[in-house]
Amino acid sequence: MDRRQFNSLVALTSLGLVAGATSAFGETEKRLSVIALVHPGMILLDLAGPLTCFNMMMADVHLVWKTMDPVRTDTGITIAPTSTFAQCPEEADVLFVPGGLGGTTAMMDDDAVVGFLRDRSGRSRFVTSVCTGSLLLGAAGLLKGKRATSHWYTRDLLPQFGATPDSRRVVEDGNVITGGGVTAGIDFGLTLAARLRDEKTAKFIQLLLEYDPQPPFDAGSPAKGGPALAASVLSRRSSALEAAKAAVERAARKI
Amino acid sequence: MDRRQFNSLVALTSLGLVAGATSAFGETEKRLSVIALVHPGMILLDLAGPLTCFNMMMADVHLVWKTMDPVRTDTGITIAPTSTFAQCPEEADVLFVPGGLGGTTAMMDDDAVVGFLRDRSGRSRFVTSVCTGSLLLGAAGLLKGKRATSHWYTRDLLPQFGATPDSRRVVEDGNVITGGGVTAGIDFGLTLAARLRDEKTAKFIQLLLEYDPQPPFDAGSPAKGGPALAASVLSRRSSALEAAKAAVERAARKI
Repeated sequence: MDRRQFNSLVALTSLGLVAGATSAFGETEKRLSVIALVHPGMILLDLAGPLTCFNMMMADVHLVWKTMDPVRTDTGITIAPTSTFAQCPEEADVLFVPGGLGGTTAMMDDDAVVGFLRDRSGRSRFVTSVCTGSLLLGAAGLLKGKRATSHWYTRDLLPQFGATPDSRRVVEDGNVITGGGVTAGIDFGLTLAARLRDEKTAKFIQLLLEYDPQPPFDAGSPAKGGPALAASVLSRRSSALEAAKAAVERAARKI
Repeated sequence: MDRRQFNSLVALTSLGLVAGATSAFGETEKRLSVIALVHPGMILLDLAGPLTCFNMMMADVHLVWKTMDPVRTDTGITIAPTSTFAQCPEEADVLFVPGGLGGTTAMMDDDAVVGFLRDRSGRSRFVTSVCTGSLLLGAAGLLKGKRATSHWYTRDLLPQFGATPDSRRVVEDGNVITGGGVTAGIDFGLTLAARLRDEKTAKFIQLLLEYDPQPPFDAGSPAKGGPALAASVLSRRSSALEAAKAAVERAARKI
């Protein structure tokens, strides 16, 4: 049993799934492989939702960054990469990019990151993102002619990468699957569980995670929150979004 | 600006909230303090949802464990405590306990953990948990006469601690607020944002996190998933739940 297999077993055991060393889905089930980009400024929750689902669908998850230096997330919690761009597997079932506006803006100008995503995208069954991670897929030229989404406040930047913005929470177009902002990662993870395993497995994971959402308020989209609330968010994001727009324009000229 | 203030600023900047160094809710807003237990086997998502909300409501979050040694979560990601039991603040706005069946089972027998929670609970405005974390609140005698919840598969253990189980996703009883399994942490975090700040702030955070859930399936509770799916989960959790039941019986005799 290698480290990643051990991690998945810990995940299942923590939730009471496993008696002894029997896997949740049978010992003969082929393990999946996921390459997940981790990066400074990443939103921890963008990663945590999908990662929990990946682990439960018996995937070996490679947390990949340029170096092995821990990256600091929005919460202050740092995450240690498990592999560098140079060392990580050549092929994967899933290439996954979580978001974080500041980080994705910086990385759109970073040829090492963009080049890595472009390279692995051709050898991954699914090319995926949550939140502003789709801006990086766009910068790598992976959204041309595709329907895709992003955090609601960056969704209108996608056409510059040749994509058609789609306001659904999880958007599937061929092998490209993109999720909306932050918490959409859970809906995304379950969608991917159904694609990579089956619907029964996805429902099993949903029940284990007790994903029966009942938000105490109904303000989770600009339409539901109303114009005043959306304006309040937009007024606070202005400088970061200006920087993202400029980065998208620069990146779009290169693809 | 100390480390935790910096972390909150990183959080807000990552989401595009902050222009310069102006806080989201005004520079005169008093910062909140949160003591969050972190522990081996913790479910990362149990922590990540609430933590994201805490940071956005401008809280200094203390990640507390017996030692400063990193704790390994279900996902394999390790989290470094920021404080030990001995060093962490005496008082807080929120005492928070995330779950993880194996870890909470082990800790119900751990006098250092139970004693710490009992001590700080008397000096915290709110005593809170998500998922199986409520078993630890119960072991510390903090649920006597209270309505409370837990992960659906441990909710029926709560009466042994003198609590009345409640199947709502987030249960408030006086200053005790408990959330259901794993993903309930997001609903819990928004509920707490409204209590500690105000409804406008909670909605602001909800919109930033784009929390407009649209699960691809409807299997997030035993009733919705149906008896066959629930039985499938229960059959896999049997040994871990047996251990939890035995630990609850031992702990209940001490309170």
